[in-house]
Amino acid sequence: MSSDIGHKLKISVFGQSHGRAIGVVIDGLPAGEAIDEEALYTFMSRRAPGGALATKRKEADRPVILSGLMDGVTAGSPLCAVIENTDVRSGDYVNLADVPRPSHADYTARMRYGEAVDMRGSGHFSGRLTAPLCIAGGIAKQLLSRRGIFVGAHLLCVGGASDEPFPLLPTRELFDGVARKPLPVLSDAAGARMEDEIEQARAEADSVGGVIECAAIGLPAGIGSPMFDGIENRLAAALFGIPAVKGVEFGAGFAAAKMRGSEHNDPYIVENGRLRTAKNDAGGIIGGITTGMPVVLRCAMKPTPSISQPQRSVRLSTMEPEELVIKGRHDPCVALRAVPVVEAVTAFTILDILLEENDHGAF
Amino acid sequence: MSSDIGHKLKISVFGQSHGRAIGVVIDGLPAGEAIDEEALYTFMSRRAPGGALATKRKEADRPVILSGLMDGVTAGSPLCAVIENTDVRSGDYVNLADVPRPSHADYTARMRYGEAVDMRGSGHFSGRLTAPLCIAGGIAKQLLSRRGIFVGAHLLCVGGASDEPFPLLPTRELFDGVARKPLPVLSDAAGARMEDEIEQARAEADSVGGVIECAAIGLPAGIGSPMFDGIENRLAAALFGIPAVKGVEFGAGFAAAKMRGSEHNDPYIVENGRLRTAKNDAGGIIGGITTGMPVVLRCAMKPTPSISQPQRSVRLSTMEPEELVIKGRHDPCVALRAVPVVEAVTAFTILDILLEENDHGAF
Amino acid sequence: MSSDIGHKLKISVFGQSHGRAIGVVIDGLPAGEAIDEEALYTFMSRRAPGGALATKRKEADRPVILSGLMDGVTAGSPLCAVIENTDVRSGDYVNLADVPRPSHADYTARMRYGEAVDMRGSGHFSGRLTAPLCIAGGIAKQLLSRRGIFVGAHLLCVGGASDEPFPLLPTRELFDGVARKPLPVLSDAAGARMEDEIEQARAEADSVGGVIECAAIGLPAGIGSPMFDGIENRLAAALFGIPAVKGVEFGAGFAAAKMRGSEHNDPYIVENGRLRTAKNDAGGIIGGITTGMPVVLRCAMKPTPSISQPQRSVRLSTMEPEELVIKGRHDPCVALRAVPVVEAVTAFTILDILLEENDHGAF
Amino acid sequence: MSSDIGHKLKISVFGQSHGRAIGVVIDGLPAGEAIDEEALYTFMSRRAPGGALATKRKEADRPVILSGLMDGVTAGSPLCAVIENTDVRSGDYVNLADVPRPSHADYTARMRYGEAVDMRGSGHFSGRLTAPLCIAGGIAKQLLSRRGIFVGAHLLCVGGASDEPFPLLPTRELFDGVARKPLPVLSDAAGARMEDEIEQARAEADSVGGVIECAAIGLPAGIGSPMFDGIENRLAAALFGIPAVKGVEFGAGFAAAKMRGSEHNDPYIVENGRLRTAKNDAGGIIGGITTGMPVVLRCAMKPTPSISQPQRSVRLSTMEPEELVIKGRHDPCVALRAVPVVEAVTAFTILDILLEENDHGAF
Repeated sequence: MSSDIGHKLKISVFGQSHGRAIGVVIDGLPAGEAIDEEALYTFMSRRAPGGALATKRKEADRPVILSGLMDGVTAGSPLCAVIENTDVRSGDYVNLADVPRPSHADYTARMRYGEAVDMRGSGHFSGRLTAPLCIAGGIAKQLLSRRGIFVGAHLLCVGGASDEPFPLLPTRELFDGVARKPLPVLSDAAGARMEDEIEQARAEADSVGGVIECAAIGLPAGIGSPMFDGIENRLAAALFGIPAVKGVEFGAGFAAAKMRGSEHNDPYIVENGRLRTAKNDAGGIIGGITTGMPVVLRCAMKPTPSISQPQRSVRLSTMEPEELVIKGRHDPCVALRAVPVVEAVTAFTILDILLEENDHGAF
Repeated sequence: MSSDIGHKLKISVFGQSHGRAIGVVIDGLPAGEAIDEEALYTFMSRRAPGGALATKRKEADRPVILSGLMDGVTAGSPLCAVIENTDVRSGDYVNLADVPRPSHADYTARMRYGEAVDMRGSGHFSGRLTAPLCIAGGIAKQLLSRRGIFVGAHLLCVGGASDEPFPLLPTRELFDGVARKPLPVLSDAAGARMEDEIEQARAEADSVGGVIECAAIGLPAGIGSPMFDGIENRLAAALFGIPAVKGVEFGAGFAAAKMRGSEHNDPYIVENGRLRTAKNDAGGIIGGITTGMPVVLRCAMKPTPSISQPQRSVRLSTMEPEELVIKGRHDPCVALRAVPVVEAVTAFTILDILLEENDHGAF
Repeated sequence: MSSDIGHKLKISVFGQSHGRAIGVVIDGLPAGEAIDEEALYTFMSRRAPGGALATKRKEADRPVILSGLMDGVTAGSPLCAVIENTDVRSGDYVNLADVPRPSHADYTARMRYGEAVDMRGSGHFSGRLTAPLCIAGGIAKQLLSRRGIFVGAHLLCVGGASDEPFPLLPTRELFDGVARKPLPVLSDAAGARMEDEIEQARAEADSVGGVIECAAIGLPAGIGSPMFDGIENRLAAALFGIPAVKGVEFGAGFAAAKMRGSEHNDPYIVENGRLRTAKNDAGGIIGGITTGMPVVLRCAMKPTPSISQPQRSVRLSTMEPEELVIKGRHDPCVALRAVPVVEAVTAFTILDILLEENDHGAF
Repeated sequence: MSSDIGHKLKISVFGQSHGRAIGVVIDGLPAGEAIDEEALYTFMSRRAPGGALATKRKEADRPVILSGLMDGVTAGSPLCAVIENTDVRSGDYVNLADVPRPSHADYTARMRYGEAVDMRGSGHFSGRLTAPLCIAGGIAKQLLSRRGIFVGAHLLCVGGASDEPFPLLPTRELFDGVARKPLPVLSDAAGARMEDEIEQARAEADSVGGVIECAAIGLPAGIGSPMFDGIENRLAAALFGIPAVKGVEFGAGFAAAKMRGSEHNDPYIVENGRLRTAKNDAGGIIGGITTGMPVVLRCAMKPTPSISQPQRSVRLSTMEPEELVIKGRHDPCVALRAVPVVEAVTAFTILDILLEENDHGAF
């Protein structure tokens, strides 16, 4: 198992949903950076459940920073932050072990770790592990914003309901506005349609997938490397670490496959004496290297696999078919709460890449 | 710059399109494996240009193995293979340096490496660098097939023309059949439509994008790890190293975003005493770990950026707008030749993951 | 800063001596391994101060495991263990910031992290950070011993007083016997001379260096790789992470430089039908790969830099010479408490190497 | 097997002594650096055999650069350089396979790679593989010297004959002077004694060990990181990749174990307005971070294991004792030719560390 990532900024996530605590170690933060714990908590609250659209479980999820700070400032040493698990009800998950939930990691975990390992409550695969990702990303966002780099995301679609995409040149204010909404969308009308999709899925004991669009602005041109160390490689390697992500695309992405070069190519223009492209189908990255335009990516999130409808499965001990009914409370649309998680993972990956360009915090 | 990838099987690619040679070092091949150089060359020929649909440049592209073999068998030491550059005509690229080609890496490379670096002929960004990837992948395919694991790919779509997707349980014979076709598709009727798309683009001095679908069969369940070391993370990190890839998805991928859980979840069934899923929207991977079903992925390829139509760009030395006309020969659809490249990258990544599970070649 | 190490078994250490807690995340432990927390604590007690020969500070140092276990058994997910800091008296270190202590990391840390970083109490450089190393190593020792692999160490010399070296074939019982002694030596007479050296140094407000010899038995032949991934490379890279280590040697080590080949070469012999070498000047490693003989290494530990004698330094703010007198309590011989630390680092490095050979715990 | 090392500057070595060619890929060289191939070849000649003191085999060892340069200047893409094997006489090694040479990697390689692998001529373990290390190090030295950083080494002892150590502040001129001598020593009288030692060993069909001292000057203070990413960890991890190295120490090294703190600690002084230490028992590194004083290290080299005297071994196929007589030509003292190799490995490791501090070549 490998729950760590990063070259200069190394993120190591730990915890199971049913253990004492979950958390993260962040190694490689530059020294001398003030960390605003309240702002971090505000950011993390965006992924916390609570609205009518999300699960009813309560999670305080306030991280406690055990190391790495002195008087609120990074000391150059690894930062460890933990969140206690206070609301563990593994009873909800009893008896799942022998009958794997379809499209859930029960079966693959059993094949990987053996029968001895009890995967009730989803163990290390739990969506709850996205909280430590948000700690790391929330801190990264603070460092980035201090350098004029901002990361924002919104729900681009839920089932059949679609938000408008980010404009060509999104602003920090746009990101902030979206982040303050209960449903992180650009168009509130679209948001209302998404709520309908989610409520309808919930009413039918079902779930629904979605797409999250994320952008990073303020990155200079010339960051990244070709081939295996490009911005796309690095971001994709991290983003697929978010549970339920099944696709990642940049710029025009899969739509580019249907385009002509004359349509897809981004013409260079000069505006206010600076070079930029007239549009951004490249998503801000060519040859693995930033163009200076916004980095734009999209993550496809599958529907929550835990649905309350009866499902076909197999009892592993007998290899007999068995109808499975999953109890417990589950988000009907994981994409909703994953919006700040995509921001977080994008932010710490970009910070890692920037720190590689110039270590010691002076980037 | 980082042109290497892999944990146990390390691939280090070198070469520019205008240098003496291009090649690859493969470190970590198990000892005692026979390498069939003819089969390797046959595999590599699949990416070579030559058909009416591809570029007219001649490339012998026969690799010479400098180290790592004894009497045709791997010795446990790193294998280095090189391909000489015999047909270098950088004159075709003269004068591009100061006027960057839209959606090509000229500008980003200049911002990354400085003006001193002449990026004519695309340097290390060249599609020609996919030949060394095919050496590594072709060798990996030989080791995998010996263990009952097969990797195949086909053109799923070109512009508006679409092939049928792989069936639920593709076979080695299916892969072999596709690989022998001049146009690697399942449906020859679809192939004819794709050829039309490509020819039409060429006739209009344009290019067109495409999607490649790739599958790996024979992988046991329980391979991989959650979070950042999952099969999806590893494959995506490698696949985005192929020039022109702008999106990677697994299983239902972006289509999952529009699905309900009841539609997307893969029910478990028993067939001939063995567990499998009734369908495979997971693409053979749940929680980063193989289910035992085929691993299925798709790569979106952007249209070739080098088109002969006049394009808007900027002369960097004066920051004045300039119309650019690109000369030289270019594939109108890079997706076509990239089919074996996607296979290759998928193969060496899977071999790397399997070697990590059990080193010393006895996996 | 990089406080993590390991390929399959990844150790990420966090904490400063003056923070809330110190600890470690261990990623990659095979699932299904029982962890004996009492045995772990017993092991850790060996590095705790307390005897007349060590510092008087009290440290409970009992680790709390936050994640990674279910009912005392590893779950395959990362294990995080923390130790609270209860006896922080940074006042002892006040005013050191501007006058760096000779041969201490004050000055280098300031140059690395900037003036803003207060290095009082030694921050992340503290010897206290060896406690998390012992958590990781103590757990690794439990897994190794279950597979017939045992790691032991002793003080080989302190100043001018020398213990006898390990015999050619040390046993588990020998390791256990040494570990139970207040002073971990083979010869108690030598131990008494070492105590005299240490007491004399303390009485003279001074400190003294030492050498630790460590051996690992039970490793099969054929583990490791040539060049940069050999057993020696891996162990040295980890052992130099222990504060105060200034040299690492294997087998005859520096003595080999004075030897003839005819004297140094280890003849092969057969004993009870098994191959071994008649002596072990190779320290169990040839060409980076184990021979099957005990792995034997030695670490040179410099004298504790914090001595109470007046020392010459410079006030950085004025660049004027200043005589420095260090207050606070300090071990006169760090080598003494470092014996289990060397064992720990050796153990987790060997476990990491073995896990690479065969993942999934079935090595 | 892992023959690669480095974070930003990645070195991947390939080749066996009996293959077509040996070589190295260097990934991560900053773009825009002129490479002087003649100077590189001059550096490499220092490790080439030829003098009366070394083996009689002829090796041209002139590297051919296949990629990574344009008009003699680094292009930012990986540099691959190869050396053809022209003088392969594996017949000399026939019949060694079944009777392992004492203290040679024959046996461990067989246990690691299996019987199928013919290790005649030492395969990838050969001392000949130090030539690619010298290519990488020779190029690194050119980049470092351009930035005022110089690396030099000398033979500190051979058997019982010792050179004087480097002075407290060695200069570039001192390094250059030593490099031009046939025997790289400070004191020619000491050199004459070393030659006697080597000649006597050769005359007695024996070999002899040695110690190499290496220093790097011009490094600023504040480079490196504590714990596992310190200068000592990085250098040791690389230096143990040189065949025959059995010990690595920094500054006072093992001598520090016999010292008091009052003797070992380096007082800070001010000279010409700049801080330095009055002596340098720390070897220029405290807490893993440079002090600004010269980095000083020593490598212990074991005697060449291939000696012509009869030796005790075992025929593996029968497990019967057998007297072994090794034919072929062998250096009686590998330490002699290893002097530039230690420089090379030190140089590329330091360049790697500096590039991490500030990527893009502008360090």
